[in-house]
Amino acid sequence: MDQSIIDASMHILIHSGDARRETYRAVEAMERSDFTEATALLDAADGCIRQAHQVHTTLIQQEADGEQLAYAALFSHAQDTLMTAYSELRLVRRLLPVFRSQDERIRALETALKTVPQTRSE
Amino acid sequence: MDQSIIDASMHILIHSGDARRETYRAVEAMERSDFTEATALLDAADGCIRQAHQVHTTLIQQEADGEQLAYAALFSHAQDTLMTAYSELRLVRRLLPVFRSQDERIRALETALKTVPQTRSE
Amino acid sequence: MDQSIIDASMHILIHSGDARRETYRAVEAMERSDFTEATALLDAADGCIRQAHQVHTTLIQQEADGEQLAYAALFSHAQDTLMTAYSELRLVRRLLPVFRSQDERIRALETALKTVPQTRSE
Repeated sequence: MDQSIIDASMHILIHSGDARRETYRAVEAMERSDFTEATALLDAADGCIRQAHQVHTTLIQQEADGEQLAYAALFSHAQDTLMTAYSELRLVRRLLPVFRSQDERIRALETALKTVPQTRSE
Repeated sequence: MDQSIIDASMHILIHSGDARRETYRAVEAMERSDFTEATALLDAADGCIRQAHQVHTTLIQQEADGEQLAYAALFSHAQDTLMTAYSELRLVRRLLPVFRSQDERIRALETALKTVPQTRSE
Repeated sequence: MDQSIIDASMHILIHSGDARRETYRAVEAMERSDFTEATALLDAADGCIRQAHQVHTTLIQQEADGEQLAYAALFSHAQDTLMTAYSELRLVRRLLPVFRSQDERIRALETALKTVPQTRSE
């Protein structure tokens, strides 16, 4: 395997792994209804993806410029890791408003119910 | 790079991108609790995936018939894009009933609470 | 195509498909608010992924040991299938506590509202 392919693959794998970790931390923040923190973590994940993407795009560009890239299962694996990590990030970013909307409605109900007299104490 | 591989990759990338866009619009409809619209958008996304899949399956079939396909990082990227877009579509389709079920329970609570007297006005 | 690559691809495709099926069943259990069953199904999906991963890792390792793997779109497809199935599993596992947390809050409201007198019967 070409050393530059190994280096590129490792670079992509590391930054994609970082992106995934930040995305999962964002989901944990969503569980605590901390949607501001979740958004900040998704932005951090975006930064990691951008770094991984840069290496990836450079290689795709080299190929488009006529350079025949040698096949390496490791690079294919790195591409997959980047694409799935990015996929998760984008999906979580879109799901966030759905959870936030439900969270706000539940919160409104919780607040409203506090003002209602109970028939019996529990 | 073989021109037919470039064409196939571009075809897959375009239709996968369309599928992803429809899937994200479905998630936005879910945020508005419009699950009928969301389902229609997911069906549209399915149509896009089918078009991308057809090109992809033809190439896999050619290879199965004994034709050695040349490696192209671009095609690998197109495959990844198809697979992650399809993955998001299928996951959102399955998450939809979970969100809908919670939406219905919240809605029932909202309706019930309207009939309850408040102890103080707010 | 090399027969061992076909065998490895088929092995990965079958176990990844099993993992995806268990993950989707977990999402169905989440719709029924059965988070214990959902967790058990995600654990089963993890077992399937582990089996698919083993074959995959062996091939990546062979390449790292200096063996040049021939390119096969089928193997690339199998890798994609594994990575997206695993991606869905990991995401659902992280989304589960978010849904469970909202489910618990809705359930608490449902219980609380039962103890509140209604102004009119419906």
